[in-house]
Amino acid sequence: MRVGVLTGGGDCPGLNAVMRAVVRKGVQRYGYDFTGFRDGWRGPLEGDTTRLDISAVRGMLPRGGTILGSSRTNPFKEEDGVRRIKDNLAKQDVDALIAIGGEDTLGVAARLTDEHGIRCVGVPKTIDNDLSATDYTFGFNTAVTVATEAIDRLHTTAESHMRVLVVEVMGRHAGWIALHSGLAGGANCVLIPEQRFDIDAVCGWVTSRFKASYAPIVVVAEGAMPKDGEMVLKDGSTDSFGHVRLSGVGEWLAKEIESRTGKEARTTVLGHVQRGGTPTAFDRWLATRFGLHAIDAVREEAWGSMVALRGTDIVRVPLAKATEKLKTVDPALYEEAGVFFG
Amino acid sequence: MRVGVLTGGGDCPGLNAVMRAVVRKGVQRYGYDFTGFRDGWRGPLEGDTTRLDISAVRGMLPRGGTILGSSRTNPFKEEDGVRRIKDNLAKQDVDALIAIGGEDTLGVAARLTDEHGIRCVGVPKTIDNDLSATDYTFGFNTAVTVATEAIDRLHTTAESHMRVLVVEVMGRHAGWIALHSGLAGGANCVLIPEQRFDIDAVCGWVTSRFKASYAPIVVVAEGAMPKDGEMVLKDGSTDSFGHVRLSGVGEWLAKEIESRTGKEARTTVLGHVQRGGTPTAFDRWLATRFGLHAIDAVREEAWGSMVALRGTDIVRVPLAKATEKLKTVDPALYEEAGVFFG
Amino acid sequence: MRVGVLTGGGDCPGLNAVMRAVVRKGVQRYGYDFTGFRDGWRGPLEGDTTRLDISAVRGMLPRGGTILGSSRTNPFKEEDGVRRIKDNLAKQDVDALIAIGGEDTLGVAARLTDEHGIRCVGVPKTIDNDLSATDYTFGFNTAVTVATEAIDRLHTTAESHMRVLVVEVMGRHAGWIALHSGLAGGANCVLIPEQRFDIDAVCGWVTSRFKASYAPIVVVAEGAMPKDGEMVLKDGSTDSFGHVRLSGVGEWLAKEIESRTGKEARTTVLGHVQRGGTPTAFDRWLATRFGLHAIDAVREEAWGSMVALRGTDIVRVPLAKATEKLKTVDPALYEEAGVFFG
Amino acid sequence: MRVGVLTGGGDCPGLNAVMRAVVRKGVQRYGYDFTGFRDGWRGPLEGDTTRLDISAVRGMLPRGGTILGSSRTNPFKEEDGVRRIKDNLAKQDVDALIAIGGEDTLGVAARLTDEHGIRCVGVPKTIDNDLSATDYTFGFNTAVTVATEAIDRLHTTAESHMRVLVVEVMGRHAGWIALHSGLAGGANCVLIPEQRFDIDAVCGWVTSRFKASYAPIVVVAEGAMPKDGEMVLKDGSTDSFGHVRLSGVGEWLAKEIESRTGKEARTTVLGHVQRGGTPTAFDRWLATRFGLHAIDAVREEAWGSMVALRGTDIVRVPLAKATEKLKTVDPALYEEAGVFFG
Repeated sequence: MRVGVLTGGGDCPGLNAVMRAVVRKGVQRYGYDFTGFRDGWRGPLEGDTTRLDISAVRGMLPRGGTILGSSRTNPFKEEDGVRRIKDNLAKQDVDALIAIGGEDTLGVAARLTDEHGIRCVGVPKTIDNDLSATDYTFGFNTAVTVATEAIDRLHTTAESHMRVLVVEVMGRHAGWIALHSGLAGGANCVLIPEQRFDIDAVCGWVTSRFKASYAPIVVVAEGAMPKDGEMVLKDGSTDSFGHVRLSGVGEWLAKEIESRTGKEARTTVLGHVQRGGTPTAFDRWLATRFGLHAIDAVREEAWGSMVALRGTDIVRVPLAKATEKLKTVDPALYEEAGVFFG
Repeated sequence: MRVGVLTGGGDCPGLNAVMRAVVRKGVQRYGYDFTGFRDGWRGPLEGDTTRLDISAVRGMLPRGGTILGSSRTNPFKEEDGVRRIKDNLAKQDVDALIAIGGEDTLGVAARLTDEHGIRCVGVPKTIDNDLSATDYTFGFNTAVTVATEAIDRLHTTAESHMRVLVVEVMGRHAGWIALHSGLAGGANCVLIPEQRFDIDAVCGWVTSRFKASYAPIVVVAEGAMPKDGEMVLKDGSTDSFGHVRLSGVGEWLAKEIESRTGKEARTTVLGHVQRGGTPTAFDRWLATRFGLHAIDAVREEAWGSMVALRGTDIVRVPLAKATEKLKTVDPALYEEAGVFFG
Repeated sequence: MRVGVLTGGGDCPGLNAVMRAVVRKGVQRYGYDFTGFRDGWRGPLEGDTTRLDISAVRGMLPRGGTILGSSRTNPFKEEDGVRRIKDNLAKQDVDALIAIGGEDTLGVAARLTDEHGIRCVGVPKTIDNDLSATDYTFGFNTAVTVATEAIDRLHTTAESHMRVLVVEVMGRHAGWIALHSGLAGGANCVLIPEQRFDIDAVCGWVTSRFKASYAPIVVVAEGAMPKDGEMVLKDGSTDSFGHVRLSGVGEWLAKEIESRTGKEARTTVLGHVQRGGTPTAFDRWLATRFGLHAIDAVREEAWGSMVALRGTDIVRVPLAKATEKLKTVDPALYEEAGVFFG
Repeated sequence: MRVGVLTGGGDCPGLNAVMRAVVRKGVQRYGYDFTGFRDGWRGPLEGDTTRLDISAVRGMLPRGGTILGSSRTNPFKEEDGVRRIKDNLAKQDVDALIAIGGEDTLGVAARLTDEHGIRCVGVPKTIDNDLSATDYTFGFNTAVTVATEAIDRLHTTAESHMRVLVVEVMGRHAGWIALHSGLAGGANCVLIPEQRFDIDAVCGWVTSRFKASYAPIVVVAEGAMPKDGEMVLKDGSTDSFGHVRLSGVGEWLAKEIESRTGKEARTTVLGHVQRGGTPTAFDRWLATRFGLHAIDAVREEAWGSMVALRGTDIVRVPLAKATEKLKTVDPALYEEAGVFFG
């Protein structure tokens, strides 16, 4: 048996840890061979491969990024894409594919399996934790940890000076990173994409916070939007991911707060720091277990399935489920955390 | 309503975060008052109290340890213990108790509720993650993170020199910290209390590892025992926790490996570093949610219950369940991880 | 002897560590009493004091920020400022002052000593490391460490994706943080305020870097300016520090690079994260030694002097020297580091 | 010009960063070629070489350990050692050598240059900071940082429980790591090899500390010895470094304190964790600058010299000076820090 592996979509700490587990167990326990495909679906589409054996994954557990590279290539948007993939898999003697990626990458895997009989198993990956079929995705804990450490550092500044500190974190459509890091870091206000925020209310909290105690820390997800403010924060362009580009809600918020409350405000924009670097112990554990179970799914020919975390168990769910609905922050959970905000 | 709070047993990052959440929600949402009892059950037993209000818990989210202190006092072993507790609760106008602790502390809470009608709610706490009623306990992720960072640092030494590196981590009866940190750190051998180890097999792995690659890293739980080796590692004395004292399996292992394989070995004993200091983001989140739900359990008069994590939900379980059975490492999970060991 | 202590200017990790050392040695060895003045020179100006004894500084070694608060108040700009300070010192029985601060705060201390006979000793403080009388100031190592950890995390993203990563760090007039963190983090381009940069050259490096290897990481000090670009980056307003406000060179740079090279670019703006939080071991050591030597300077009546680091020694220099010239990055040092840039 | 590079002695974070700087500047600025010799002096002795070019050092800045490996081989103790080295250098067309190491490694380089005309330049390396010709050596700041983080974590445990916490750190002959980390971590007692300690005095401090405040933290260098206690702590054997083996002063101390004061004590033994893993920003800066200046020394034919740090400058000193006298802790400095101890 020869198994192909690819990683698609954005960077996420733990991708290499998944591959290491897949290869170590596949080689040692099942005697499989592996082929790495470069840059997500571009690899099988163009037949671009790389060696993937035990020595290739040595030392990869703590390494962020992906040794296979990544892309957003979608074979269904390429001429003759499915046939070219089939040809290349045949040429490489690849019997099955493990696709590690988010909604888009796994959506392709689901269709390739269901509609074209290509034997795929999926591993979910999203820094944003917005896949509904799994309790958590690897990378998310790392992002929350990085953001929380940043918020920790801001507290002493907030105590010493009278400045509002705004932290912009990742999350275009889901506020999980904002909510978890805001709660873990002891922020005074957390703004998420799921609920339009009222800039007057935010400024009210800021003002009351100054009266009660020291300066406020505001965590805002990059995708959070003010009521009636959409046009302000979007510019017309789109990036390579096809996303409409936002123009910086953190900086916008700081300026609005300054002009409305008369208090100085400063912004931290963490950006890609949240998705790079070594995974946390939790994410290495989760990524490793996903890898071990993904190769078992191949062994057991569970084509079209995806590994997922449920409590402390790794289970299998249909690939299609992973892509069916975005897991956004439950309003009840946001409300629960609201004890600490405002 | 006036609610008493106490923390019992060993140190654990997140204790203060639980209290902060209990007090913030209790005061702000329900208008409750709080009384802190010092040093676990010694507090209500002797009527030793301290102020516990919003200003007392300010800034406590990232602080390790417990502002209430802790002890192993068991009122059922004290003369007239239950009556003295009842008298002191009455004297302080305390209507209900939130007990944060492990097996022993919660066992007392269960009996006080069930047998004596004292209104208790429990919050589980163990660095060792060995309570069966909850997916995880807070503090565990922090301990694993500290141990993993230590193992990470040893890898480059193992690459450069030809020495066996032994890391002794916490875990007298359960190997969760060893297993998780060993897996996350990429150790080559993990020894846990649940399975007696064969020193000949360990030395065999060490020798083969040197042949295959660079020097091995061995993670050993403090309670791990060699086959037929119990007497070697226990000295006769007991500590204040009533535990039989072990005499250092890490150091013992290093010496045995040296004399049997001829390779030099060095030991790191992390000790209390694993249970002190600031909690990780994960543990702050878990501890905070436990606190929020514990005060809700008081609100809803769910006496004799304990909060617990199931997947991403906080649920309630009977206090008695928490103390009924130690959650040790599932052999299947140890076997699953074994791909990377040996 | 009663000694007053104040902290002025921006936040800096290590301020509390200085105070702790001053008070511990002053009380234990010399039997002095202390008075804390709040918010820099505003404290003695308005007679706003706080208790400063051994219990007040307990646990303060690892705490960022300043328990005395800070401000930019300048008594020479206040009506009758010097006389009010003299009156308040007399009223509080304060015999001498230790002023911990940067150029502005120490400049006031120098004039108060030299022109008005107020007995001052200074401790240098600047996150930016731009005081010429000392090898290093505390806080700088912490800022560099925070920035380096951020750059470390970006490397794996740069390896996996084809995006330019821009990191904006502190440094309005001096590029020390940019240079040290850029060198320690392995950045490919470091832009500092001391040398106007040529945006065409930057884009040339970016393009060549993509050809040679993976994506480039660009570190830019907040005060760096493109040739002929000043107007672009300054808006008209000034902040509470009297600084002309910059409008974000990091974001500007990312947009220019995108439009000129066609490569996507993303920005991280670390902001106040660099100046908050716990000091590094190096900064705690330096701050503590500064404190120990500052109280010795009081003991030896070395009024008008400031403690400074020379090699591994703490020496005394005239306060006036500290404020006379900004220590900017030596062009030879920038050139030396240039091996790794471009 | 072809330059050989070797690393000798114990592991030290920053070794790879030195090599990266040597190679980058040597290739890019001077057009040199490089040969890596494996395992210290064993490499040139046996002609064991490895490729050392720009791609070999890529990504090596943050990596601990040494890609060249290390050993304690001393060519002056090998038959015909010097002649064999000369032959192998000739065979490899190596014109000059950069030796990175401690007292032993550099001592060999000094003799090879002075007595045998082999063209050597040295870079000082010792985790212990005990070389007298330089203000600091790289690796030391990393070790202090690791030890300080461990002490930080112990404080909350010391606050919550009534246990003495003993931390054993590196330092066989010099107490620099103990002193710096003890001071930076806020330890209550620091014991160093330079001064025999009085166990009665230590127990006296422990007892008085419990009365004054919370539980004490004791930092002890591995080479610290009680008065009249030498025999207790040494066992007869020697390790591969020719060091007499110590049998654990940390554990010994904890047991003595327990039996003499009746207080429980726990030990943390950090071991090789202090010398492994990624270097701090400070050590990367220092190692990089050492490398840049070492290749300049080759360029300028400064044979027999070693690079060293003086203040913020890198200077050259005779290799012989580096090996002439161990830099131990100045009693005045230990006394200065004593404000915080006892």
